[in-house]
Order: sequence, then C-alpha cells, then structure tokens
Amino acid sequence: MSSNQLDKKSQAWSALFSEPMSELVKRYTASVFFDKRLWKADIQGSLAHAEMLQAQGLISADDWAAIQKGMAQITAEIESGAFEWKLDLEDVHLNIEARLTQLVGDAGKRLHTGRSRNDQVATDVRLWLRGEVDEIGVLLGELQKALVDVAEQNADTILPGFTHLQVAQPVAFGHHLLAYVEMFARDAERMVDLRKRLNRLPLGSAALAGTSYPLDRERVARTLGFEAVCQNSLDGVSDRDFAIEFTAAASLLMVHISRLSEELILWMSQSFAFIDLADRFCTGSSIMPQKKNPDVPELARGKTGRVVGHLMGLITLMKGQPLAYNKDNQEDKEPLFDTVDTLKDTLRIFAEMAAGITVKPEAMERAAKKGYATATDLADYLVKKGLPFRDAHEVVAHAVKDAIALGVDLSELSLTQLQAYNPAIEQDVFEVLSLRGSLNARNTLGGTAPNQVRAQVARHRARLA
Amino acid sequence: MSSNQLDKKSQAWSALFSEPMSELVKRYTASVFFDKRLWKADIQGSLAHAEMLQAQGLISADDWAAIQKGMAQITAEIESGAFEWKLDLEDVHLNIEARLTQLVGDAGKRLHTGRSRNDQVATDVRLWLRGEVDEIGVLLGELQKALVDVAEQNADTILPGFTHLQVAQPVAFGHHLLAYVEMFARDAERMVDLRKRLNRLPLGSAALAGTSYPLDRERVARTLGFEAVCQNSLDGVSDRDFAIEFTAAASLLMVHISRLSEELILWMSQSFAFIDLADRFCTGSSIMPQKKNPDVPELARGKTGRVVGHLMGLITLMKGQPLAYNKDNQEDKEPLFDTVDTLKDTLRIFAEMAAGITVKPEAMERAAKKGYATATDLADYLVKKGLPFRDAHEVVAHAVKDAIALGVDLSELSLTQLQAYNPAIEQDVFEVLSLRGSLNARNTLGGTAPNQVRAQVARHRARLA
Amino acid sequence: MSSNQLDKKSQAWSALFSEPMSELVKRYTASVFFDKRLWKADIQGSLAHAEMLQAQGLISADDWAAIQKGMAQITAEIESGAFEWKLDLEDVHLNIEARLTQLVGDAGKRLHTGRSRNDQVATDVRLWLRGEVDEIGVLLGELQKALVDVAEQNADTILPGFTHLQVAQPVAFGHHLLAYVEMFARDAERMVDLRKRLNRLPLGSAALAGTSYPLDRERVARTLGFEAVCQNSLDGVSDRDFAIEFTAAASLLMVHISRLSEELILWMSQSFAFIDLADRFCTGSSIMPQKKNPDVPELARGKTGRVVGHLMGLITLMKGQPLAYNKDNQEDKEPLFDTVDTLKDTLRIFAEMAAGITVKPEAMERAAKKGYATATDLADYLVKKGLPFRDAHEVVAHAVKDAIALGVDLSELSLTQLQAYNPAIEQDVFEVLSLRGSLNARNTLGGTAPNQVRAQVARHRARLA
Amino acid sequence: MSSNQLDKKSQAWSALFSEPMSELVKRYTASVFFDKRLWKADIQGSLAHAEMLQAQGLISADDWAAIQKGMAQITAEIESGAFEWKLDLEDVHLNIEARLTQLVGDAGKRLHTGRSRNDQVATDVRLWLRGEVDEIGVLLGELQKALVDVAEQNADTILPGFTHLQVAQPVAFGHHLLAYVEMFARDAERMVDLRKRLNRLPLGSAALAGTSYPLDRERVARTLGFEAVCQNSLDGVSDRDFAIEFTAAASLLMVHISRLSEELILWMSQSFAFIDLADRFCTGSSIMPQKKNPDVPELARGKTGRVVGHLMGLITLMKGQPLAYNKDNQEDKEPLFDTVDTLKDTLRIFAEMAAGITVKPEAMERAAKKGYATATDLADYLVKKGLPFRDAHEVVAHAVKDAIALGVDLSELSLTQLQAYNPAIEQDVFEVLSLRGSLNARNTLGGTAPNQVRAQVARHRARLA
Repeated sequence: MSSNQLDKKSQAWSALFSEPMSELVKRYTASVFFDKRLWKADIQGSLAHAEMLQAQGLISADDWAAIQKGMAQITAEIESGAFEWKLDLEDVHLNIEARLTQLVGDAGKRLHTGRSRNDQVATDVRLWLRGEVDEIGVLLGELQKALVDVAEQNADTILPGFTHLQVAQPVAFGHHLLAYVEMFARDAERMVDLRKRLNRLPLGSAALAGTSYPLDRERVARTLGFEAVCQNSLDGVSDRDFAIEFTAAASLLMVHISRLSEELILWMSQSFAFIDLADRFCTGSSIMPQKKNPDVPELARGKTGRVVGHLMGLITLMKGQPLAYNKDNQEDKEPLFDTVDTLKDTLRIFAEMAAGITVKPEAMERAAKKGYATATDLADYLVKKGLPFRDAHEVVAHAVKDAIALGVDLSELSLTQLQAYNPAIEQDVFEVLSLRGSLNARNTLGGTAPNQVRAQVARHRARLA
Repeated sequence: MSSNQLDKKSQAWSALFSEPMSELVKRYTASVFFDKRLWKADIQGSLAHAEMLQAQGLISADDWAAIQKGMAQITAEIESGAFEWKLDLEDVHLNIEARLTQLVGDAGKRLHTGRSRNDQVATDVRLWLRGEVDEIGVLLGELQKALVDVAEQNADTILPGFTHLQVAQPVAFGHHLLAYVEMFARDAERMVDLRKRLNRLPLGSAALAGTSYPLDRERVARTLGFEAVCQNSLDGVSDRDFAIEFTAAASLLMVHISRLSEELILWMSQSFAFIDLADRFCTGSSIMPQKKNPDVPELARGKTGRVVGHLMGLITLMKGQPLAYNKDNQEDKEPLFDTVDTLKDTLRIFAEMAAGITVKPEAMERAAKKGYATATDLADYLVKKGLPFRDAHEVVAHAVKDAIALGVDLSELSLTQLQAYNPAIEQDVFEVLSLRGSLNARNTLGGTAPNQVRAQVARHRARLA
Repeated sequence: MSSNQLDKKSQAWSALFSEPMSELVKRYTASVFFDKRLWKADIQGSLAHAEMLQAQGLISADDWAAIQKGMAQITAEIESGAFEWKLDLEDVHLNIEARLTQLVGDAGKRLHTGRSRNDQVATDVRLWLRGEVDEIGVLLGELQKALVDVAEQNADTILPGFTHLQVAQPVAFGHHLLAYVEMFARDAERMVDLRKRLNRLPLGSAALAGTSYPLDRERVARTLGFEAVCQNSLDGVSDRDFAIEFTAAASLLMVHISRLSEELILWMSQSFAFIDLADRFCTGSSIMPQKKNPDVPELARGKTGRVVGHLMGLITLMKGQPLAYNKDNQEDKEPLFDTVDTLKDTLRIFAEMAAGITVKPEAMERAAKKGYATATDLADYLVKKGLPFRDAHEVVAHAVKDAIALGVDLSELSLTQLQAYNPAIEQDVFEVLSLRGSLNARNTLGGTAPNQVRAQVARHRARLA
Repeated sequence: MSSNQLDKKSQAWSALFSEPMSELVKRYTASVFFDKRLWKADIQGSLAHAEMLQAQGLISADDWAAIQKGMAQITAEIESGAFEWKLDLEDVHLNIEARLTQLVGDAGKRLHTGRSRNDQVATDVRLWLRGEVDEIGVLLGELQKALVDVAEQNADTILPGFTHLQVAQPVAFGHHLLAYVEMFARDAERMVDLRKRLNRLPLGSAALAGTSYPLDRERVARTLGFEAVCQNSLDGVSDRDFAIEFTAAASLLMVHISRLSEELILWMSQSFAFIDLADRFCTGSSIMPQKKNPDVPELARGKTGRVVGHLMGLITLMKGQPLAYNKDNQEDKEPLFDTVDTLKDTLRIFAEMAAGITVKPEAMERAAKKGYATATDLADYLVKKGLPFRDAHEVVAHAVKDAIALGVDLSELSLTQLQAYNPAIEQDVFEVLSLRGSLNARNTLGGTAPNQVRAQVARHRARLA
C-alpha cells in the first residue's frame, strides 16, 4: 500500500476504481482553486477535532503533538506562499490532509477518524462565514456612523422630500440620510439573527449518519466557539440554509445600497445638483473631457444584481435535492465568497464616500420651492381652523391650481387671495407656508423637524457606541 | 364642493386635474380587487388612529363615537357581502373611508387627520402579515409534530441513507424524518426573527415627513400590539424589507418542502417502493388506468418556484427606488398574498399527509443491503484494531471490490476471506457488518442510533409543547 | 358502471382508489379556476382531434357530428356564462369532456381515444399562447408607431444626452425616443423567433409514449395551424421551453418598459421638468393637495418585478425534473397568464401614454447648457486642426476646468481666452460650441443629427407598415 | 503635457480632477483583471476602426501602418505573457491603447478618433461572444451526436417510461434519450436566433450621440463580419439585450442538462441500477470505501443555479437604468464570462460522458414490469373491440386493482380471469399485454416504437451532418 495514498486525489478511492479521473473531469470537479481560502478554518477545525480525539483517548498524545506540529508548519507554508496546492487533490481539505500525512505520517492518517469530508466542509464554511459576518457587522456600524455624522451636520438643511419623485414636502437632508441608517441597522440585526443559526457545529455528523466513535461534540463546539451542536447528522451535512439566509440578507443590504446609490446619482446630476462626490470616487470619460461620473454608486447599484444572482443561484441549487450530501452543494462556495467580497468592499467604500459628500443647500432649497411643498401644511392649517381634513384637502387643491396658473408659490399669494379660498385664513398662514416653518412643524416622533433629527442622531450614536 | 368628494377616486384630487383617469388606467392602477383582503387590518388601524386622535383632542368624542359606529356597520357589511367595492375608489382604504363618510359625514372626513395613505397602507400590510406569520408559526409546529410522530414510530426502521443518491450507510427512517424537523424548526425561528422587524408601527409617518399634529404614536403602537414605532418617517413609508425578508424565509421553507417532496416522490416510485401515500393525496391518469400519482408532493415541489419567483419579483421591485414612497410599491401585495396562501395550504396539507404515510420497512431494508452500507463500519472496526483511518479505508475498498466481483455483501464473506484483508479481523466483525449493528453503533449526539432518535423525539416534543 | 364516471374528478380513476380526495387536496390540486381561460383552445384542439379520428376511421361520422354539436352547445354555454365549472372535475379539460359526455353520450367518451391529458394540456397552452404572442406583436407595433410619431415631432428638439446621468452631449429628443423603438423592435423579433418553437404540435404524444392508434398527427397540425409536429412523445408532453422562452422575452420587454418608465419619471420630476404626462395617466395624493404623480410609469416599472419573478419561478419549476410529465408542470399556467395580461395591458397603456406626452423644449435646452455638453465637439475641432485625439481631450479638460471656475459655459469664453489653450482655435469654433451645431454635426448612420433622425423615422415607418 | 497621459488611468482625465482615485476605489472599479480576456476582440475591433479611419482619410497611411505594427507587437506580448497589465489603467481597452501609444506615439493617440469606450466595449463584447456562441453551437452538435449514437444502440431497449416518477408505459431507452436531443436541438436554434441580434455593430455610436467624423460604419461592419449596424447610437452603447438573451438561452440549456443529470443520478442509484457511468466521471468518498458517486451530473445539476443566477443578476442590473451608458453595465462581463465557461465545460464533458454510459437492459426491463405498464394497452384493446375509451379505462382500473391484490401482473392473469372484466377479450390480448408488444404498437410519428426511434435517429443524423 502506498505510504500516502492521498498523493493523488484519484487515489483516495483507488482500489475500487478501474480508471483515473479524466483531466477535464478533474478540472470540472475540483474546488481547490477557490476553496483554498478556507484553509485557516480547515486547520482550526482539524485541530479542535484532534484535540477532542486525544481527550477521548481515540488518538495518542504523541499523535496530537505531531498533528499540532504539522499544522503549524502547514500554516507557515501557506502564509509564506510555499505551500503547493494540487489540483489532483481536489480541494483544500485533501490538500492539507495529504501534506500533514507527508509531514507526520500515521498521525495524519488518524486525523480523519470519526469525520467525513461532508461534515468537515460544512464546519469549515460555517467557521469562515461566521468571521466574515462579524466583519460585515463592524463595517455596517461604520457606514451608519459616517451617515449619522453627515446627518447631524444637516439636521437643518432643507431638501425637497419626494414621493413619486415629485416634490412632496420639505424634509431635512439629515432626516433623509437617517432613513438609510434605519435600513442598515435592520441589516445589522439580520446579520445577528442569522449568525445564531450559522453558529452551530456540524462536525460529528460524519458522512451522514453520525459515527461509531465516542466523540465529544460539545467539546469541539466549545473549542471553536459554536453556540450549539447540529442535532441531526443528516441535516448537519446537507443543511445550506445559512448560505441562503446570508445571501438573502446580503441582497437586502445591497437593495439599500442600490437605493442610496440611485439617490446619490440623481443628486449629483446637473438637474438636481444637490451634492458633489469627492473626485476620488468618480471617473472621467475617454471621449468627453468635461465629464465627472459617479462611478462608485453606479457600480454599487450594478453589483446588487450580482448578489441577487447569487441568492437565486443558491436557491436553485438546493431546490429539490434529496438528503443527504450531494455534489451539487460544492457550488455553494463561489457565490458565498463573492457575496462576502462584494459586501465588504462596498460597505468600506460607502463609509468613506459618505464622509466625502459636499452638500449644496441652496440648490436643495431652490428645488424644494418648486413643487408647492407646503400645500399639506395649508390643509393642516385649515383643519386646525375646523375644516374636516378631506374638505381642507380640496380647498388647497383649488388654491394650488390657481397658483400654478399664476406661476407663483402658495406663499406668494396675498392674504386676500388666500382668504378667497377660506375666510378663516389669517396672517399667521405665511409662517405655515414657509419651508422652514413646515419643517419645524413636523415635530413628532420620527418626523423631520430638526430637533427630532438631532434626537435620532443621539439615539443612533448611543446604539452604535 | 361635493359632500363626499371620495365618491369617485378620480375626484379625490379632482380640483387639480383637468381630465378623469381613463378606464384602462383605472384598471391598471387599481388595487381594490386584491387589497380588499386587508379590510380588517385597515379598520383596526383606523380605529386605533381615531382613538388616539380623540385622546389627543384632535377629534371630538362625538366624532370618535361616530367613527366607531360607522366602522361597525362597515364590518357588518363586508362580512355579509353587502359592501360594494368600487373600482373607482381604487383601493381598500379609499373604499372604506368613502363609505364611512357616507355613513357618518364630517367625522369620517376627519379620520385622515395626520395620516396619509402611504403610512396607512404600510401599517395595514404589517398588521395583516403579522397575523399570517403567527398562523404560519402554528402550522409549522403542527407539521413538525406530525413528522415527530412518524419518526418515533420509525426510530428502529432501517432505511438506506444516501449520499449522492448512492447507498451510503444505514440510517433510521425516523432519524431521516427528524432532519426535516430540524429544517422546519429553523424556518420557525426565522419567522420569529422577522416578526420583530415586521412588528413596528409606520403610522404617524404621514406622507413621508411626519406630521404637524401632536400624534401619540406610541399609544397607537400599544393599541395595535406593535413592539416599536418606526423611528424615521421616510423609512416608515418606503420600507418593504419585511416583505422581502418574509418571502426569503418563505422560499427557504419551500426549499425544505421541495426536498421532502422530492424524497416522497422517489420513495413512492416502484423502484424504491419505500412508502405509500394515502389515496386522498394522489390522483390517477386520464389514460393509464393503473396510475396512482403523488400529486401533492409534486405540486408542492412545483410551488417552490412560485414563491421563489415572488422573492425575485419583490427584490427587483425595490432595487434602485429613490425615497420615499413610489407607486411601484403597490406591487408588493399580490406576491405577499400568494406567498402566504401557498405556505398555509402547503403546510396544512403536508401535516395531514405526513400522518398518512404507510412505511414499508422490508423494502427499505432490502435496499439498504444493496450498497455495502456497512463498509465504513468495517473501516472503523480496523481503526479500533490499530490501523490508521486512511489505511483502513483502503483495505476495505479492496474488500468491497472483491465482494462486488463475487456478487456478495461484505457480511457474506467468510471470516477467512475477511482475514485475508487484515489478520486482526475476528468473529465479532459480523455484528459490525450487520445493518442493525451499524445503526446501533452511531450512538453519539446527532447520530442515527435508535436511542438517539428517541432522545431527539423527546427533545422536539418538549420544544413543541 | 356509472353512465358518466367523469361527474366527479375523483371518480375518473375511482376503481383503483380506496378513498376520495380530501377537500383540501382537491382545492390544492385543482386548476379549473385559472385554466378555464383555455376553454377555447381546448375545444378547438378537441375538434381537430375528433375530425382526424373520424378521417382515420377511429370514430364514426355520427360520433364526429355529435361531438361537433356538443361542442357548439358548450361554447354557447361558456360564452353566455351558463356553463357550470366544477372544482370536482379539477381542470378545464375534464369539465368540458364531462359536459360533452353528458350531452352526447358515448361519442363524448370516444373523444379521448389516442389522447391523454398530458398532450392535451400541452397543446391547449401552445394554441392559446400563440394567439397571445400574435396580439403582443401587434401591440408592440402600435407602441413603436406611437413613439415614432413623437420622435418625428421632436427630430430637432434638443435634449441633454446623459451618460452616468451626467450631461454628456446634446441629442435630439426624437433620437432618444427612437432608442426605445430599437428595443421594442428587438422584442418583436424575439416574439417571432419563439413563436416558431411554440408553434409545434404535441398532440399525439399521448401520455408519454405515443399511441397505438393510427393517428394522423400532421393532419391535426394543419387543421390547427401548427408549423410542425413534436417529433418525440416524451419531449412533447414534458417540454415547457416555450413558457420559459416567452417569459424571458417578456422580462426583457419589461426591462425596456422599466427603463423608459424611469426616464419618464425623471423627466416629469420638477428638477428636470422636461415633459408632462396627461392627467389621465397620473394620480394625486390623499394628503398632499398639490401632487400629480406619474403612477403609470411607476407601476409599470414595478410590474417588471412581477414578470421577472414569473421567469424565475418557471425556471425553478423545471430545474431537475425527470421525464416525462410531472404534476409540477401544472404550475406553468398562472405565471404565463399573468405575464400575458401584464404585457398586454402595459403595452396598450404605453402606446396611449406616449401619444399624450407634452414636451417642454425650453427646459430640455436649458438643462443641456448646464454640463459643457459640447466639450467633445471642441476636442474634435482640435483634432481636425491636427492634434492627436488624446492630446485634444486633455486640452479641453483644462478649458472646462477653467470655465467651471469662472462659472461660464465654453461658448461664453472669448476667442482670446480659447486661443490660450490652443492657438489654432478660430472664430468658427463658436458654431462648434453651440448645442445646435453639435447636434447637426453628428450626422453619420445612427447619429443624432436631425436628418438622421428623420431617416430613421422613415425606415421605421416602412418597417412597421 | 505628458507624452502619454494614459500611463495612469487616473491621468486619463487628470486636468479636471483635483485628486487621484483612491486605491480602494481603483480596485473596486477596475475591470482589467477580468476583461483582459477580451484582448483579441479589442485589437480586432481597433484594427477595423483604424483601417476605416485611414480609408476615410481621417488618419494617414503611416498612422495606419504604425497602428498595425504596434498591435502586432502587443499581440505577441500578450500571447507570450510579457504584456504588463496595469490596474491603474482600469480596463483592457486603456491598457492596450496606452501600450500602443508607448510603442507608436501619436498614431496611437489618433486611434480613438470618432470612438468612445462606450461603443468600443460594446463592440468587443459582441465580437467575443459571437465566437463563443459559435463554439457552443458546435459543442451542442457534438452532444447531440453522442446521444444519438447511444439512442441508436438502444432503439429496442425497454425502459419503464415514467410520469410522476411512477411506471407509466414502456418506452425505448433510445426514445428517451432522443427527447434530450430535441431539447438540445432547440437550444441550438435559440443560439442561432440570438446570434442575429448579437451580430450588429455598435461602433460608431461613440459616447452616446454618434460622432462628427465621417465614419464609414458599414465598412467596419463588413470587416468584422457583423450583419448589420446598430441604427441608434444611444441604443448602441446602452443595449445589453444580447447578454440577457444569451444567459436566458444558457439557463434553459442548463435546465435541460439538469433534467438529464437528475435522470442519470436516479438511474445510477442502486434502487434503479439502470446504467453505470464510467469511473472517470465519478468520485469516491473520504470515509465510505464502497462509494462511487456520480459527481459530474450532480455538479452539472448544481451549476444550473450558477447560470440562472447570472441571468437574474443581469436582469436586475439593467432594470430601471436610464439611457445611455451607466457604469452599472460594467457588471455585465463576469456573469457572461462565467456562463460561457460553464456551458462549454459542461457540454464537452456531457458529450464524453454520454458515450461512456453502460446500459443495463435487464434491470430496466425488470423495473418496467413492476407497474402495470401495459394497462393502457389493454384499454386501447377494448376500445378496438368497441368500448368507448372512458369505459375501457374504468374496466382496466378494476382489473389492475384485482391484479395488485393478487400480486401479479396483468399478463399473468388467465384468459378466463381477464374475460370476467369483458367477454370480448381474446387470446391475442397477451401480445398486447407484453412490454415488447406495447412498445411496438406505439408506431406513429413521435412514438416509441423501435422503427420510429430509428427513423428519428436518421433524421437527426442528417440534420447534424
């Protein structure tokens, strides 16, 4: 028998097979060129498994020492770039195990006791993703903080609030930005929730049925920081819920990024000209010398598609698979990896970009004046004078229609003109018809009045501290 | 002015508009024929709003009494089928408000004080969906209980456990079913998690900016059982995260249903013949008189596509929308409604169907004998005799190869034949090579040994009680 | 034996079944409430089948006459609303066949000779969809014509052409609209292409294997206007490619509608104010009396999600199904129906809406002046004076930078100022720097020069005639 | 001015920009590391453009010669691996242009005359994809041929035909495989159809509006083999229909691959054991020494998700984008590249795998006997004796029910027993009840009779020649 039958992956099951895997098939089925990024998790998981095997008397103290030594060397080799990844060894797991056996002999061959690649890969992916989810949580916090800072500076800045992209009512620009803070806060909550389900240990499920070795799975869970142990071995090896739940949360996060991007692009368009993005987030044109394009938000909006595509891919992947592990599942990794990379890069760059927004308050205010943004205030004024809301609404519609015909704002009508619509209107109406008056008036919880915005800033600061 | 300008939706904003909406447009934009199912939530929300308006002194006690009385009559009318839903009034909200005004006059016109359809519809959908999520939670519990019952009856039933749809190792049929209980338990967890984010009150956000009336939003939240108040009005009216998060969780649930369906279909196929489904879940053929088809699991597998499609539709819907409310959002309802209906029907029918499964243990055991399912047990046996796992794996591969050539199972080889592979093999190997012995041996947490299955049954029973 | 064992669907296979289908299951599996819209295609297909059966001597002339008479009566009943659709009879096919047998006795029972519901339903759906595809083709033509009309009226209207939503170069508004005509023309091409594959006859595939009756499938194909006969019976009953291909083409069509909608919404926003939509395509607000919202394009943009969701649903549905017919396939209908409805309504309404656009040329021209839209023209001018393009690009970038600092357009710099960037600049540069000069200059095939636009208008007119 | 301002991408628009792009942004927005695979198309496109510029007198013969020489050297450098790809130069286009200018000076700077990156990248992607579509067409042909070969060898091999995965009627295994040939033939048709729309030239659209240089776009189209010229410049730079249409066709192709994979996996499962796949397409297990897993079809089934995800990603990407080019579009490339790679690898490996299938006819025939597969034949027999089909169906259902109770096949009932169901039954019924008799009887166009299968084989051979 070969002293290291793992030298070639096709030899891992050689006795039973009459011909080696074809080169085309090898390339088609191999995962090592993308799953090698799991190496740290793989070694971490193997060490926790070996430590437990030794504690349970399943391997000797010498074996355990040899495995630790071998893994330390492998770690050094990988970190230095000296490790030779072999396509023939198919994946990160066999590559590391084969090298370990080469380095420490029989101890390496004992490492796989009570374990299968099925539970090993499930464990590695969870370990790796848990770390990434934590990083994403931090980055989400930083993006929120950056937005809160800009919001605070703009608690009083008047922006035309839109519905249907039509001027609706004036809002504080800071209030508008805090809407995104709410969204990203929910994204962070979802990351916390999914982390619970992610943070369960499949190791010990073996191939699909559990194992006949007296493993101490809870010990391994403790060592690796898992909150719980997967309670069913078949489920342990075949569950990819965490991948779908994560990419679903990621898709929603990207939808928020995409909405913010859409607005940044609109606001930077010359017709709005509400903001400017720092040059370092923009590019020019190969043909139009005057161009400064908001590349980063556009690209981020585009990358939403990428992440949504991964979600759909993963659902399609799992739909209709019988238990337990099937090779289809190998396709879970690339979408996960790419989703994580996209999220991390995007969050980092948006936190930086938010801080570099130049606000143009005059342009915002000018735009807010275009659309009879205080018409609702006039209706509310009339309600306070005793009209039922629906009647007040109708009165104001008439006033707006006439003002449009005259080409003036409601605030530019004279008191006499206004009183023609309803005699109860008095001089104090002009405060109501001003943008600033309108803004200040929306002073209930969640409203856009500057002191509400400041209260929310304080709440977010406390929450994110 | 018309005494009830809501008689026709196109008159709700008539003063400003020079022509009525075209019939085609009316039909295209109307939602009343699907959103009328929100009527209960709409009335509930309006009553809570009116109660608060009165408590805050914004409407009189008489108005409040009139609104209550009007709403009671409307409730009666809708329940009796007497209520006349009008396309001209576009949606459930205007239909109810118009009728209220017809019934109680000015009090009805005052109801909309400090409120907009934007926050009203967001509130209604959340209220309605919260109730459905709770029902789905109950149905998920019932499906789990039904599966746990069958699992308990089959804690000892031997099934060939598959990986790659190849016989891998024997598992208990009960153990296999409990894998699905784990999945549905996670689905239930996700419903609990998303309910928190769903259960926040948008009302008081008004059109997008909050309102100038001194509303007591927390009072409304308490009345309606919301855990919190949406803290940003722009977010309050434009947030549809809950719809996406719910359909994502629903998609995952349907992926689980689809996997179970795939297995039920396989198991009922004559080549497996592991189970029979009760006739009432099957149909025959219009041409083949002998057919009995597992229609229900097939259709459920197909309905996975429907729910996944809704998720994709909702993500596409929200992607790239600027704040705040846009009419695109009206398209959130039909996918939500259909997802809820599909889930509830499917869960109900699966709970009933699970209870009606006839298990055929002999066929299962016969199939388990076909694939050298105890080969791993022989390898583990050799490890206990001192061989490193990788060497033991290779020894057994040779034995399996020879057994295939001889057309016998490993357990049908003689002791002498077995000892040729390794002299350490002794008489006790035959216990190891039996399906039952293999099953019993996998006796660690999460493993398939019958007493582990029974322990899990007990755990689930306690959890679901 | 019952004289009409189809009275209840559950009796269609009653002999073999020991219990009737449960009410819940009946509702879950029934399709009659949505597939009854196929009734015309079903009768048409049945008549063509019966005619052929008679021509082949498989049924008598009397039977054929009876079937024709029965079907005529059923047609009348359905059209008048008198036909009683029964849930118990599951689908449109059994409902019609049962009624036929009730009306004409044994002749009705002979209709199903050599046919199965599997090939029957596949035939019906194809027949129905073929008609809808043709209607969609007509509607696409009408939308194109409406856009061509507006384009012709605006062959000279200057619009700021955007890339990255930044002003890039002036384009004719007519040119811009013709870009959408190109898109919808491609959509129409795709409809033509997919119609070929749709227009093949599955009937004669029977349940899955063909039939032992000497059918003349080509005769049936001729009668029904199918171009070809499905050449493989297993494929004939299980192929749903046409549904996926159609919804994919529909999704792309809706992406075009969505892009056009996005622009209509932007253009109608007060910050652009490039166009106005007729009031009958807009709605107001329940709270803001001044609002006029572009509901139709917003809703159409939202409906894109619906159609894309159906595509995703159908792909998920078919993925991984073994041959031949499975009940999953019943789920193909609702997405198809809804896609067809959405497309037809949307196309109709957009053709009407396009004709109702009010163009505001001054606002467009004013916006075009904001972004140094003729900078490329200056670069091209310098190239004609001998500079390599890349150098000219750089020279102009400097000029733009200075003009921004001065707050003027390039055309507002003096000749002396311009010559400082390059001495070759002469008086004729000012023609180049004008919007109209820039527009006229782009006078090659596909360019925005008004005479190119008019040439394209003529080409489209000829094509669409 | 720098002699080569393209040395750094951030310098391509340096004059206008006050700060360089940040490193993070550079990495986020750069595409060179994936789009460099377009290099051949980029050079080909540039040469055709330059040739036309020279023919139109826009550049000199010397410039044209210099550009040719420079491009030849760049080609050599890229092919030898000596070309240095620079992140700073963002994409393949700027990398090549910058190197060209380095090599040939001003001639290189003149190449971009009348061209923009917007039309350049659109042209490159179309050129590249056209080549790939042609290769995919060839590979589809080869897969079909491989399947036709196996089908021919198995024109007489009896397989249980399934509907609902229940035994329905016997079919020839060859007939079953030809169903997939039909599917792949449709896929090939779709490739041909989409190629027409792909094969149109955007070059000459410039940035978005066309150009003021007198380009001869039709000359460039002829040089590059494009069938037509994009007729609208705005559409030319923003159209990504071809990417969506291609990935939609690819998704459908993968759905077919996935269905075939599902069946290969089922057939190789021990419970079916209908076929064996060659060892070189399978893998073993790290823990279960007896395993031989059908990795290739499982992975291919899984890769369906990947391609479907790309389709959904691309649709999401384009949905709602205003004209003309936006940076979002850069995200079109990776999904396209990965889709092409996945398709080509999968088609190649399936053609090879099909040829390596070992068929086990006895197992297939044994399985066909399990499910009363000839019941329909008995019904048809009774129809020929004069019973209406529906009555015959019911008679046979009774016979099947009794046979199940007796544990025998219909063909094992005695003539007397059979006559109890209907006295018209005679001795010749036993031919009808045999699998072979049933197979031979389905002898109409598209049916499973062996001579029909052979006729189809001949038709496909002729078609694919």
